[in-house]
Amino acid sequence: MAKGSRNVLWIMCDQMRHDYLGCAGHPHIKTPALDALARDGVRFDSAFAQSTICGASRMSAYTGRYVRNHGASGNEVPLRVGETTLGDHLASIGAEAVLVGKTHVRADEPGLARLGVAGTSDIGIRLREAGFFPFERHDGLHPDGDYDPDPTYNDYLRAKGFDADNPWEAYANGAIDENGAFVSGWFMENAHRPARVPKEHSETAWITDRAIDFIAERASGDRPWCLHLSYIKPHWPYLAPDPYHAMYDASQVTAANRSEEERANPHPLYAAFMQERYSAAFCRDEVRDRVVPAYMGLISEVDDNLARLFAFLRERELWDDTLIVFTADHGDYLGDHWLGEKYLFHDPSVRIPMIVRDPRPAAAATRGSVSSDLVEMIDLVPTFLDFIAGDAVSQERHHQLDGRSLLPLLEGRRPDGWRSHVFSEYDYAYDGARLRVGTPVDDSSATMLFDGRWKYIHVPDHPPMLFDLQNDPLERRDLGRDGGHEDILAGMHKQMFDWCRKQSNRTTVAREAIATAAEAIAAYDAVIDANILIGYWDRGDLAEEQAKRADFVARQPSRTHGAQGQTT
Amino acid sequence: MAKGSRNVLWIMCDQMRHDYLGCAGHPHIKTPALDALARDGVRFDSAFAQSTICGASRMSAYTGRYVRNHGASGNEVPLRVGETTLGDHLASIGAEAVLVGKTHVRADEPGLARLGVAGTSDIGIRLREAGFFPFERHDGLHPDGDYDPDPTYNDYLRAKGFDADNPWEAYANGAIDENGAFVSGWFMENAHRPARVPKEHSETAWITDRAIDFIAERASGDRPWCLHLSYIKPHWPYLAPDPYHAMYDASQVTAANRSEEERANPHPLYAAFMQERYSAAFCRDEVRDRVVPAYMGLISEVDDNLARLFAFLRERELWDDTLIVFTADHGDYLGDHWLGEKYLFHDPSVRIPMIVRDPRPAAAATRGSVSSDLVEMIDLVPTFLDFIAGDAVSQERHHQLDGRSLLPLLEGRRPDGWRSHVFSEYDYAYDGARLRVGTPVDDSSATMLFDGRWKYIHVPDHPPMLFDLQNDPLERRDLGRDGGHEDILAGMHKQMFDWCRKQSNRTTVAREAIATAAEAIAAYDAVIDANILIGYWDRGDLAEEQAKRADFVARQPSRTHGAQGQTT
Repeated sequence: MAKGSRNVLWIMCDQMRHDYLGCAGHPHIKTPALDALARDGVRFDSAFAQSTICGASRMSAYTGRYVRNHGASGNEVPLRVGETTLGDHLASIGAEAVLVGKTHVRADEPGLARLGVAGTSDIGIRLREAGFFPFERHDGLHPDGDYDPDPTYNDYLRAKGFDADNPWEAYANGAIDENGAFVSGWFMENAHRPARVPKEHSETAWITDRAIDFIAERASGDRPWCLHLSYIKPHWPYLAPDPYHAMYDASQVTAANRSEEERANPHPLYAAFMQERYSAAFCRDEVRDRVVPAYMGLISEVDDNLARLFAFLRERELWDDTLIVFTADHGDYLGDHWLGEKYLFHDPSVRIPMIVRDPRPAAAATRGSVSSDLVEMIDLVPTFLDFIAGDAVSQERHHQLDGRSLLPLLEGRRPDGWRSHVFSEYDYAYDGARLRVGTPVDDSSATMLFDGRWKYIHVPDHPPMLFDLQNDPLERRDLGRDGGHEDILAGMHKQMFDWCRKQSNRTTVAREAIATAAEAIAAYDAVIDANILIGYWDRGDLAEEQAKRADFVARQPSRTHGAQGQTT
Repeated sequence: MAKGSRNVLWIMCDQMRHDYLGCAGHPHIKTPALDALARDGVRFDSAFAQSTICGASRMSAYTGRYVRNHGASGNEVPLRVGETTLGDHLASIGAEAVLVGKTHVRADEPGLARLGVAGTSDIGIRLREAGFFPFERHDGLHPDGDYDPDPTYNDYLRAKGFDADNPWEAYANGAIDENGAFVSGWFMENAHRPARVPKEHSETAWITDRAIDFIAERASGDRPWCLHLSYIKPHWPYLAPDPYHAMYDASQVTAANRSEEERANPHPLYAAFMQERYSAAFCRDEVRDRVVPAYMGLISEVDDNLARLFAFLRERELWDDTLIVFTADHGDYLGDHWLGEKYLFHDPSVRIPMIVRDPRPAAAATRGSVSSDLVEMIDLVPTFLDFIAGDAVSQERHHQLDGRSLLPLLEGRRPDGWRSHVFSEYDYAYDGARLRVGTPVDDSSATMLFDGRWKYIHVPDHPPMLFDLQNDPLERRDLGRDGGHEDILAGMHKQMFDWCRKQSNRTTVAREAIATAAEAIAAYDAVIDANILIGYWDRGDLAEEQAKRADFVARQPSRTHGAQGQTT
């Protein structure tokens, strides 16, 4: 890579909580590499995922758009053809989006066929991969079924001597019990055992290796890249290789954040999710005591691999050219609020880690700081565009992007009118919870609005949930049905309506183009520039309007203007 | 065409009011062909355009989707690549959408380039034409500017001996005054003069000829077609050929529907549109007295040409195989409510003519009837699909279609839960009115909700408008700011919120597929079918769930089910 070109390393973990980092205040977890990154950058501690499920959150990350706009609301929902991605935006400025790891994208095959885009063409491959060049796509989870019949990681394990029909299942997700028998990582009772692969061949290590391979390959190239290094872990199955399986024990598991009050009269949707198997499991202390240490170990394993990667960047003298972002697609309840998994909008689920290290001297003033500005996952695409090509480029895409560049915040310049609230959405169409609350398929999207204090959750056909994080930072008291907060509820509802009804699909015309046209329209009937006369009675009418036009033109600096053609 | 195959003739006028038809009760206008069509079919007298401007209304017509969903909110806004059109839906059932006349579509060239779709390929041509095969695209309006440098109609006129640099401008849109001088149809003072082309070479006649050419060409084919015969008229310039220019006079112009009360304290957006040149012009009686007769003449000219076309269909024995729809993209205020043009949501603008003649015996019971069911332009795509391929096909597209098939209504079977309200949207980003009311570009969409009695119009950053069409059928009293209608306003606002926040972009997965998956999810943890275990502690947990699964499978009729793979 030519010195001076600017690259982006965008690291994402899957299902990693915002608070399981040393620098975020976790009392026991060891994450020295990420802590050092935070000391050298900014840790955003009010960062939010646009959805609390992998696919939808990631499609927002890759398009810079809210879920309701890109439409891929769940893991099963393909990203519709035509949505503009990070890869498209970067391609237009001569840069490239490259993938190593997971995206969870599902291609819109009928849409691609409709448009006649062949799967084997460069464009077809990129469209099938949410805009990324798939240096190494690896979505993890390789059971014996047909999820992904031919993962490269299985070939890798075989080449390293871990031979089996499905080496991932047999080694990376397998362990040996006290009797020498094979046991599966799918069962959480085995979470305290070491995986059957040494740490240097774990999924996390292999993905890191592949990222290093990419960077080594491109180190001499001129084209700026954004490498999306997307780890599977600490997502379940919760099974870590030695020594990470035993790095933590039950004494280091923080108490679950839950109270009996939450179970007394829960919101129907909350009650429905509390009934899921994974929620019931995490309500048992034996589950938390065994699983949470493994979860912590998997995070420390990622951290150690990042240390290795960061050392490589320094060694190759790329450290000072590379914007590094560390984040996650959503969190994991781990038993907080009587829930497992994610899906709802309590902080353990919707809040995400977000560390940004900006190498530019302009960012020196904020190094080591913690920002409580409200930021969203959709801010990353404009941030990357801004970093590689400058603010003008990210600004002119704002009709296609819902997010905002974080670079001003990294420079310590908080823009006027920085957002006052964030949104997140979860489509529970495919969940048993939808059936329990009796919601039709099209009404199954819950939406969170958070303004830094109040967290408001709209649930179709049900009352909203409402949490006051100032007086109830643990989010144990849902005020949505309590009475006494009518004004807050009405205000939040209005904000949500304004957000829902906004123009967000007029993506084929830039706002600036409209504003420029308006400048002329304010001064005269600009349609006459196309020789089209609407509402003119006679030539006298036209003369009057032509005079206004001439006056406008005379007042302009020397540049072209007007709509399309010459004057009638 | 093979006997028994089913075709669709979809006639659209531009800017034609719902009430300028003999069968709709106009006291003077002569529309015998359309009146006969109505006697042989159903006239829907509560039909609404999805937008009050050509482009946006038509993109809704061609996609079967609300404007907020397809995003092409104005004439200047390209239809984004990837939107599924009537042409796509018909192609998937072996039928074809064919265009003769106007669409106002603007192709999403950057989107097509992004997807690598060449403009000259069959798919590229169709994508550029909103899904239609352009047998003859003709968008009208051919001034000397660069609107459309090479219209076929100009070639046609030249071939007929009307030679000029721009024959349309010189002949079709030109007239000769008392002194023998050329005068332009752009100036409404000339609306009483005959155009310089004989009626057999007018735009309307030529477009009709081209439709006949298409039908003659395809009469022996097997592939069902939907011909979109899309007239330019009675849209301005208001200039008709002889004898239509003199068919009506000022004595046959119905009084403008307007009252001083409307000007006393108008809604700011209404006030802004009242200030436009075209509105001021139509407030003058001399303008109405001269323009409205021409407008009526242009409609009678369309009617006469339709008589010719219908005779051709009968002669070719296609009449009994062809579903015929007559409609318009929106209306024309013509001075009603102190307005010209369209854009706002009073009936003269948003309500559209809609006559449907269904040749099937099943539709015999409704022939000659008038339906007051609320129907929308977006209902046509599912109606055409239903007519050509059957209800099952149109149903399974409902995740991509916002409209509903009208065939049940045509058969006299009003489905349970037929819609209770209709929506229409207008994006005034490009209007001077936006600047007058001081609205940002992204907030410039007004939305109408009408439930058969109450018409509620949401205007961002302003109070809503509200009309009670039961007690005020002329829509002269805006109750939105009057007080006393808080409950109605709140109820309408809630309906609008529900509509805005609904899942409408999850277009890549059919609702039915979700519902089918849910059937299994209700009975057991269906994810185990993919050998993925979430939240399982041990094999005992799995055995429990497997038992539920086995029970579910045993209860099913012999068919496949479940998510993806075999059982762990």
